[in-house]
Amino acid sequence: MSDSHVEKTSDLRVNGTRLWDSLMEMGDIGGTPKGGCNRLAATALDGQARDLFVSWCKAAGCTISVDQMGNMFARRPGRDNHLPAVGAGSHLDTQPTGGKFDGVFGVLAGVEVLRTLHEHQIETPTPIEISVWTNEEGSRFQPAMQGSGVYAGRFDLETELNKTDIDGLRLKDELAKIGYLGDEVPGSRHMGAFFEVHIEQGPILEDEDKEIGVVRMGQGIRWYNLTIKGRSQHSGTTPMHLRQDTMVVSALITTEVERIAHRHANGLGTVGFMNIHPNSRNVIPGEIQMSVDLRNPDADVLQQMHDELVAFCDVLASARQLVIEVDNYWYFAPVEFKASDDVKAATEQLGYSHMDIYAGAGHDACYMSDLVPTGMVFTPCLKGISHNEAEYTKPEECEAGANVLLHAMLRASARIAQSQC
Amino acid sequence: MSDSHVEKTSDLRVNGTRLWDSLMEMGDIGGTPKGGCNRLAATALDGQARDLFVSWCKAAGCTISVDQMGNMFARRPGRDNHLPAVGAGSHLDTQPTGGKFDGVFGVLAGVEVLRTLHEHQIETPTPIEISVWTNEEGSRFQPAMQGSGVYAGRFDLETELNKTDIDGLRLKDELAKIGYLGDEVPGSRHMGAFFEVHIEQGPILEDEDKEIGVVRMGQGIRWYNLTIKGRSQHSGTTPMHLRQDTMVVSALITTEVERIAHRHANGLGTVGFMNIHPNSRNVIPGEIQMSVDLRNPDADVLQQMHDELVAFCDVLASARQLVIEVDNYWYFAPVEFKASDDVKAATEQLGYSHMDIYAGAGHDACYMSDLVPTGMVFTPCLKGISHNEAEYTKPEECEAGANVLLHAMLRASARIAQSQC
Repeated sequence: MSDSHVEKTSDLRVNGTRLWDSLMEMGDIGGTPKGGCNRLAATALDGQARDLFVSWCKAAGCTISVDQMGNMFARRPGRDNHLPAVGAGSHLDTQPTGGKFDGVFGVLAGVEVLRTLHEHQIETPTPIEISVWTNEEGSRFQPAMQGSGVYAGRFDLETELNKTDIDGLRLKDELAKIGYLGDEVPGSRHMGAFFEVHIEQGPILEDEDKEIGVVRMGQGIRWYNLTIKGRSQHSGTTPMHLRQDTMVVSALITTEVERIAHRHANGLGTVGFMNIHPNSRNVIPGEIQMSVDLRNPDADVLQQMHDELVAFCDVLASARQLVIEVDNYWYFAPVEFKASDDVKAATEQLGYSHMDIYAGAGHDACYMSDLVPTGMVFTPCLKGISHNEAEYTKPEECEAGANVLLHAMLRASARIAQSQC
Repeated sequence: MSDSHVEKTSDLRVNGTRLWDSLMEMGDIGGTPKGGCNRLAATALDGQARDLFVSWCKAAGCTISVDQMGNMFARRPGRDNHLPAVGAGSHLDTQPTGGKFDGVFGVLAGVEVLRTLHEHQIETPTPIEISVWTNEEGSRFQPAMQGSGVYAGRFDLETELNKTDIDGLRLKDELAKIGYLGDEVPGSRHMGAFFEVHIEQGPILEDEDKEIGVVRMGQGIRWYNLTIKGRSQHSGTTPMHLRQDTMVVSALITTEVERIAHRHANGLGTVGFMNIHPNSRNVIPGEIQMSVDLRNPDADVLQQMHDELVAFCDVLASARQLVIEVDNYWYFAPVEFKASDDVKAATEQLGYSHMDIYAGAGHDACYMSDLVPTGMVFTPCLKGISHNEAEYTKPEECEAGANVLLHAMLRASARIAQSQC
């Protein structure tokens, strides 16, 4: 890319109205009376959404590829088509009572980038590819981020294609049924960077009154199943000193989880689930299973939080003379978004208010960061509500996010072309 | 009763082997493979148990009456049959996975008293009556202590007879079906005292190594439904300072309930039940319903415990900026067992180790104490386990309880006769 070309493209802006209209049109496929969307992965509705995506991308001059996992890639050629492409994308599937923005916005912001480049007849230094990843939500088939996980080599293709939904229907058959079981080998595309724009799904940007979140890292996550084994006894006949009350023990752990989170910068700690036996008002619960969710963007700090939880449970079990089993059954290492400087530079160039932020939830970009330098752009969302029909991001916020995506991709494309000279 | 007669009856003892055999024979009606009993109120099995009770009492020289609530009374005449009778009894119905002792032991200890008096041809100063109260457990029809509650005038007869089980079967019809819907008006019998022997259903006597608990009071009980309304948010995207985490709030209340109980002599505090929304590991719960159970034998202290709970919730709701609704929907005033001196004197006369104790659970004797001086005798039960097939009280412990019942009744009978001279 020549310096004169940069001056030309620096004035480029997406069409916010067109983006919004596309979001609403896409949201009608599986649209719910409450304004949300119910479009589970690999259903007929998912097929319709994919068809619409394909028609829009073809109209913007793209070719379409589909891989064996149903992941789709709309490719717009660049000046040198031997260079690695700059990718962007997200997912079109939703939660059963999901919104119109989670995932969908990331795909359609990409479509809007394609359209903007197309109508202004911009030739980018490298190809541009907008992807749709299969089953990011993990609602119909588990796990979440299934398509990008297979693409990045985290999961085995055949294992995932053989996963079934609650009616016993197999993902592979369901993808074939809607015409999106392709033949390309997952992971085989030639990409040099990847970006994903997404609603924040949290309240920070709204609370801090920022238009753009520059996502520096994906938080590390540790998920636990705790089992507390005490003694089920009558609430009216058991004096306090003869109890092994698992409800009180779970309460002490819950308050300690909050304290652990507060003790560490950027720490999060949550108890969201409890299964109480027998869960009757006049019986001291004899056994409780509970979840603990600890997060931190720093792997060492997250390990320290883990150590504190385990130590607390050890002391508590001993003091209360009962059993606390701590099963740390899942660990998701922190993700570094190595192309986040492109996002930050684009945001500053466009003059949007912004802040650095961590991705608290999982995203397709997290797995793509295994393969290529990746960047994420967050936009605010109303009250932080997501996975909910009430999910909402304003048209001007969507427009800002798509503009940042456009210019982050242009910067990455220029960078890749220069580095390969 | 003359002094010479007292000297004669003071040597009386029940037949422990006969009592145990009867407990086992009765336990076979609805007996479970695990050694417990499933004999719900007003079922055919309850009918069989009542038939067996009737046959045993008739063999011991009694007449049988049944009231309109299905409560039964086996009467053994005394020297002066115009004097108020000394009553004793409990219930024959069990929990669905109940034991062989809860309730049943109180009835059969009464039967053993009748048999002992009968075989020794003892003429008591007043009549003796052993009662079986309908549906004490409250498992099939609600509320618990239904028969004695109607007898004492706490509940309306017709309302209770029209109560239905989960299959829509009406108590009145079910009692008629097994032949135990009588015509006597509940509450119309002429009693001067009432006693109930019962397994402790708690661990205190075993822990203190005492053979007999002299029940001085029935604890006062306050039951609460608390509703905590916060905000349901993503566990990975919501920073700690922007949360309204109802799980942490419920935990703080649970630990405070324990502290309130510890702060007050004889205080008990329990959270046994929680309903968590949405109860998902990566969602901060937005709403929780929870139970609180506070108990104290002293009404003023129980009121103070109540005030402390309400004040804590007020401060917490304000500090955490969320809503805590505290509904104290049930209050059971403490019960004073005014005939407990008879129990204590009988225990000391027999030389059993003993201690004063509070009744933590509800019993038919609690309602009977509305009408006449009442006493309760507790025996140990293995590990405090009750409402469970593993419920167990040793033969010698049952024998001791029945001996105390016998002599407490003889003392009350003598006292009533003297006071009416």
